[in-house]
Amino acid sequence: MKNTQIKLVSRPSGIPTADNFNIETAEIPKAKDGEVIIKHEYISLDPAMRGWMNDSKSYIAPVQIGEVMRAGAVGKIIESKLAGFEVGDYVMGWTGVQQYGTSGAENLFKVDPNLMPLQRYLGTMGMPGFTAYFGLLEVGQAKEGETVLVSGAAGAVGSVVGQIAKIKGCKVVGIAGGPEKCNYLTEELGFDAAIDYKSGENLSKAIKAACDGGVDVYFDNVGGEMLDVVLGRIKRHARIVICGAISQYNSRDIYGPSNYLSLLVNRARMEGFVVFDYAKDYGKAAMEMAQWSMAGKLKSKEHIVEGIENFHSALLRLFSGDKMGKLVLKA
Amino acid sequence: MKNTQIKLVSRPSGIPTADNFNIETAEIPKAKDGEVIIKHEYISLDPAMRGWMNDSKSYIAPVQIGEVMRAGAVGKIIESKLAGFEVGDYVMGWTGVQQYGTSGAENLFKVDPNLMPLQRYLGTMGMPGFTAYFGLLEVGQAKEGETVLVSGAAGAVGSVVGQIAKIKGCKVVGIAGGPEKCNYLTEELGFDAAIDYKSGENLSKAIKAACDGGVDVYFDNVGGEMLDVVLGRIKRHARIVICGAISQYNSRDIYGPSNYLSLLVNRARMEGFVVFDYAKDYGKAAMEMAQWSMAGKLKSKEHIVEGIENFHSALLRLFSGDKMGKLVLKA
Repeated sequence: MKNTQIKLVSRPSGIPTADNFNIETAEIPKAKDGEVIIKHEYISLDPAMRGWMNDSKSYIAPVQIGEVMRAGAVGKIIESKLAGFEVGDYVMGWTGVQQYGTSGAENLFKVDPNLMPLQRYLGTMGMPGFTAYFGLLEVGQAKEGETVLVSGAAGAVGSVVGQIAKIKGCKVVGIAGGPEKCNYLTEELGFDAAIDYKSGENLSKAIKAACDGGVDVYFDNVGGEMLDVVLGRIKRHARIVICGAISQYNSRDIYGPSNYLSLLVNRARMEGFVVFDYAKDYGKAAMEMAQWSMAGKLKSKEHIVEGIENFHSALLRLFSGDKMGKLVLKA
Repeated sequence: MKNTQIKLVSRPSGIPTADNFNIETAEIPKAKDGEVIIKHEYISLDPAMRGWMNDSKSYIAPVQIGEVMRAGAVGKIIESKLAGFEVGDYVMGWTGVQQYGTSGAENLFKVDPNLMPLQRYLGTMGMPGFTAYFGLLEVGQAKEGETVLVSGAAGAVGSVVGQIAKIKGCKVVGIAGGPEKCNYLTEELGFDAAIDYKSGENLSKAIKAACDGGVDVYFDNVGGEMLDVVLGRIKRHARIVICGAISQYNSRDIYGPSNYLSLLVNRARMEGFVVFDYAKDYGKAAMEMAQWSMAGKLKSKEHIVEGIENFHSALLRLFSGDKMGKLVLKA
């Protein structure tokens, strides 16, 4: 029994290539005092990982060359020298793209596989879900009767944004790529409308038609020209929540939104956030989201790729959009 | 005695040319019921005027072709059929680039030439001053001990922003063009530092040096690349107040800030506003600003151009920066 690990061995420029990563085999680690060893079941693949591969100042230190690639993961504790955590407990931690991870108490959370499928704690009941919850409600201040537009709407974050907005009494429009995703939004998740940005239809006109009167809250996961188009369709006092910019993460030159003066005309704001700042309120959010899930108001889908050795090709699905819901790797 | 008027006769593309305007002569108007006739003494020249010349949807309707160019003005009432306003009263109104204006009660304010020079009611004690006051305090939420950076710092709005920020206990850095303006900021207005963006010095490094630790509030009058550079120097939870973008008003293609993802990394926001929304609080702001002026804490300078026929060449000084403080036209 060995530990297969994915290490970052060079920094990508543009789309990550297979040779930016090494697949290596190590011994299964041993716990020191205050640590647990986790046998991973699922590893999270998130757009933010692309940023962590860059050697630039950001909200978190870059992954260093030669390190195991950073990732959230869920699994079962197989050894514990950490008070409060027992062998057999299921946990979510930041234990990286490998089969066995080591964690201290920090950012280690117990999860219950009887309540939800384990992989869901990397999606709706984990960071992406919390990102949606705090981004929409705290940063976006979405209110009943308002129109919420979300990009990347069929993704791990966007799908939760839209459903929470519906729960809060908003009109919800999602932007996604392709008819299958758009059907999923309106038929399964209860979105009021979905816009297929790949359809060739004029996006500005489609937003105008779907969001009669314009957008109160835009939850942006995509950035680029799409953000610019939406800026032309915001209402007075609109809030644009900058959650991410997946269209730009592999670009050398970031697309700047030339319609930003729409913020002035419309007395609107554009605001960024990082979900980690809300850590003290994760419990409250988790409880509320669990209740919504039980009540059938908050649905989830995970796209599971088998085999840690498929990390690189799985990762690329984040950027191509070739997945539905939360993308995870089965360790 | 005739009324010389400046009319918009074609829409500029890029920098306004002399032939976008006609100088015409009309009869002095007569007041109808509910109106006053004002003999103008000073007419305000503001960057926002450039936007009003465009035929595009904005926070206010465009000036129509053939209309007298919209402007604020101060002067003396020579005829009144409006209750509460007497012949001889001095007023500020939106009565346009002409020697005699007609106004109803809306947006007509009495002013006192014994308290301040009359032209100041178009600057520090008028719209630019209110813009600075509400933009800095309400939108920017500037607080004691924070670092405030302002562009267009020697202008009508910027100079007031910086002085109010000092009054509120902030560290204040101004960006202006040329040593004369920079000296004015630090020697006369009490700014902590001034950055001459025309000096050839690297702007990002200059901001880093002057704002040790970065910027909490950026009050932006300029836009363009300068906004992008500042985005690279903001602190966590920074507020960027979008007041204007004078560097872009004559451009066909607006420069979009490609560093906008700094808002995400720094949990920061960028917000626009329009001063008219604060009209119900002008009185409160005017009282406070008058007190600061009396106490010598809020200084003002006006750049007066003589002769309404010089409207076009005077207007161009807004974009070339060839003026100091508030630009007004003596009617």
